[in-house]
Amino acid sequence: MIVSTIASHSSLQIVQGAKKEGFKTRLYVSPKRKNFYSSLPIIDELIVTPDMKAILDDDGIIVPHGSFVAYLGIEAIEKSKGKFFGNKRFLKWETKFNLVDKALKKAKIPQVEAVDLSEVREDDLYFVRIEGPKGGSDHFIAYGRELEKRLSEVKEPYRIERFIDGVFVYVHFFCSPILERLELFGVDERLVIADANKRRPFEPLPYTILGNKSIALRESLLPELYDYGLAFVESMKDLEPPGVIGPFALHFAYDGEFRCIGFASRIDGGSNAKHWYSSLYWGEEVMMGQRIAKELCLALDEGRLEEVIT
Amino acid sequence: MIVSTIASHSSLQIVQGAKKEGFKTRLYVSPKRKNFYSSLPIIDELIVTPDMKAILDDDGIIVPHGSFVAYLGIEAIEKSKGKFFGNKRFLKWETKFNLVDKALKKAKIPQVEAVDLSEVREDDLYFVRIEGPKGGSDHFIAYGRELEKRLSEVKEPYRIERFIDGVFVYVHFFCSPILERLELFGVDERLVIADANKRRPFEPLPYTILGNKSIALRESLLPELYDYGLAFVESMKDLEPPGVIGPFALHFAYDGEFRCIGFASRIDGGSNAKHWYSSLYWGEEVMMGQRIAKELCLALDEGRLEEVIT
Amino acid sequence: MIVSTIASHSSLQIVQGAKKEGFKTRLYVSPKRKNFYSSLPIIDELIVTPDMKAILDDDGIIVPHGSFVAYLGIEAIEKSKGKFFGNKRFLKWETKFNLVDKALKKAKIPQVEAVDLSEVREDDLYFVRIEGPKGGSDHFIAYGRELEKRLSEVKEPYRIERFIDGVFVYVHFFCSPILERLELFGVDERLVIADANKRRPFEPLPYTILGNKSIALRESLLPELYDYGLAFVESMKDLEPPGVIGPFALHFAYDGEFRCIGFASRIDGGSNAKHWYSSLYWGEEVMMGQRIAKELCLALDEGRLEEVIT
Repeated sequence: MIVSTIASHSSLQIVQGAKKEGFKTRLYVSPKRKNFYSSLPIIDELIVTPDMKAILDDDGIIVPHGSFVAYLGIEAIEKSKGKFFGNKRFLKWETKFNLVDKALKKAKIPQVEAVDLSEVREDDLYFVRIEGPKGGSDHFIAYGRELEKRLSEVKEPYRIERFIDGVFVYVHFFCSPILERLELFGVDERLVIADANKRRPFEPLPYTILGNKSIALRESLLPELYDYGLAFVESMKDLEPPGVIGPFALHFAYDGEFRCIGFASRIDGGSNAKHWYSSLYWGEEVMMGQRIAKELCLALDEGRLEEVIT
Repeated sequence: MIVSTIASHSSLQIVQGAKKEGFKTRLYVSPKRKNFYSSLPIIDELIVTPDMKAILDDDGIIVPHGSFVAYLGIEAIEKSKGKFFGNKRFLKWETKFNLVDKALKKAKIPQVEAVDLSEVREDDLYFVRIEGPKGGSDHFIAYGRELEKRLSEVKEPYRIERFIDGVFVYVHFFCSPILERLELFGVDERLVIADANKRRPFEPLPYTILGNKSIALRESLLPELYDYGLAFVESMKDLEPPGVIGPFALHFAYDGEFRCIGFASRIDGGSNAKHWYSSLYWGEEVMMGQRIAKELCLALDEGRLEEVIT
Repeated sequence: MIVSTIASHSSLQIVQGAKKEGFKTRLYVSPKRKNFYSSLPIIDELIVTPDMKAILDDDGIIVPHGSFVAYLGIEAIEKSKGKFFGNKRFLKWETKFNLVDKALKKAKIPQVEAVDLSEVREDDLYFVRIEGPKGGSDHFIAYGRELEKRLSEVKEPYRIERFIDGVFVYVHFFCSPILERLELFGVDERLVIADANKRRPFEPLPYTILGNKSIALRESLLPELYDYGLAFVESMKDLEPPGVIGPFALHFAYDGEFRCIGFASRIDGGSNAKHWYSSLYWGEEVMMGQRIAKELCLALDEGRLEEVIT
């Protein structure tokens, strides 16, 4: 059996994991990325094409990741006859403010406070979040007095958030329908261009994500996060049946308490930063890509593949 | 044989390590943390109880960690008939300024300079350290001119330190009575709420620890740190016989030279951030929790258990 | 067969890797570093000597690292009759601005912009880079208005760079003549003293490197970096035949695009921060030190040792 994906985002671990679990692997790669991906001995079939939409007709099991919506569009994915790992109707839930709010409210996960421009105070700091996952490049921080002018230049839907004086952590989960278990896989922190301020006089800089760093969160903070994970899974069962299948991530600001700033409704790029919690469940460290392949194996063994693909 | 601990701090690696080395595992968990810990397949016996003091009567080998003193108190631990891994009389040494000073002075490990309020300069920056390990939440930085007012609100014993213009690293050791060897296990950096300043205009923020990040220190800095570790072990042999047994950590500020800011007289939470140095001693990567279990195995094999428990 | 190196920089992973691949190991260590290195069970022969030049007559395979040029000097290394892993004439290329420029220009890797003092603007920020790898300790940032005075105190060759509002990442490669393959091994970020500014009011602080942190770069950024690696290898074939053999690193600033700030013409200290990309090529995680030993094994097996030593 073949596992297929697009060469981007988290495809390295998806392909490697599939290979380790005994699948053949197929990767759709754009011509300008060919040198790197063709150097790797873990890819059985490399399809070099400028048009990623070719994957919509793939006959293997397609593993979506954070670049799928950008490359293919929600509609094309939902209409595809391809066998997608996970619940492909869940993919859209991270892309719109109203869906994000609906999911988090139902799960009773505390959210960062959104404010109206009319409520803004001149000297307070705000975080302006642009709708949809864009690698953070368009989000910005600004004082209340700057907001009106700055927002007049924003073309996309946005939200003004009360700035949280804290750090941001991204919590990775795997929800297994076959084992009926939620696994907490790890935590990362983003490395963003604005982090340059740790070495220089302050300058407002873009929140563009450049990479991820593995974090060992204080163990006493994990049970609360795990409960949020459970509540999220529960809420999505109702909102988008059959609910979450496989990887997702909850994103939090922490200033002494956690406030959710969004989620990833698929494997999150932060899982590229290796973490050891998987060994608590699997006896050895397994990255999220391999965890997906393990779920496929378990499902195939029990003749339950249709429970983990849509 | 059973290894027991409290579900917090570094219990995940303690329990996992014990399991890997062939022990049964028992975990005391408060009801609100039950969901997370009960999802893990590495715990043989989960005792759900609001009262952690139940562990004081445990009949297994009790592995203390950074939450023990907070949950149980020094006195109850020292009086307990339970078999504690390590020297339980060493646990108190990190909790009082005078004990910390005594240990570091005897070991001749350079310390960060403490100053008296009367010596303080208006425009210099100071770090106010609150006595005892509190996860950093009450420490604060302030300019000399602000100190008097700020300190008038502090209820606990504190110390004013000259602020060090540098970074903070936490060095993890394991002292093996069975192998008669000191092992340098790794180095971490804390992630604290105040780190938020890497992305925003400066604001004094709490030093509350949120997590830990693994650091590969410049190799040329390790021999000096190892020597400090050796000296610390040597000094504790006299100060609190039989001295250090098992894990401890030395905490340093570095601005071109190391100055000690304290230590952990038990497994340090920073060992939750995985590091590879253990493989130098063990051929494979072993976390501190597993290292503890290995010491127990070595001791049991040689009939020397009483040398590693108190 | 014996693998020899100097006890510093990345010798831990070099020695461990050699041991894992079946070599004997020999380490030259200065007396004040003896305690640490003699505690490690992976060193077969520890030569304690205040004079590192003893390694120049070593009869094993000498693996150079970032401390070799500082301890031995380029000339002594090039004249040595010892069998050095890699192209020892490549070692000098990182040490002079004109060689760095020549290599990067030929490879068409975009560089950070160097400016003349006369072009400097009063209120712009600049980065002054001191020639040669010095662990970053003499580099500094300054506003244009401060430059003339600051530079008057600099004794060594320097370069004024336009300050880049971004973060710095270090990309580790292994170039295998035996497998005819370039492997992308991982990415790190430096921990420098100036990073202290993430928790305090800004103060210009030294860029002295204290350690390294592993970074999982966004996967979509890797193909471009891999292409730079290929181009670099290609250009060095002409500039310093037989070109790059084994490990090297390219150093970049990133503010939305990559600009090269230099390179390491040997194993880079940042490879001490463990990364998982090696498992893409080798099925298991292998540090750069072990990768070197693997190349030696491959070469020995095929009777091609002379292709990987000089």
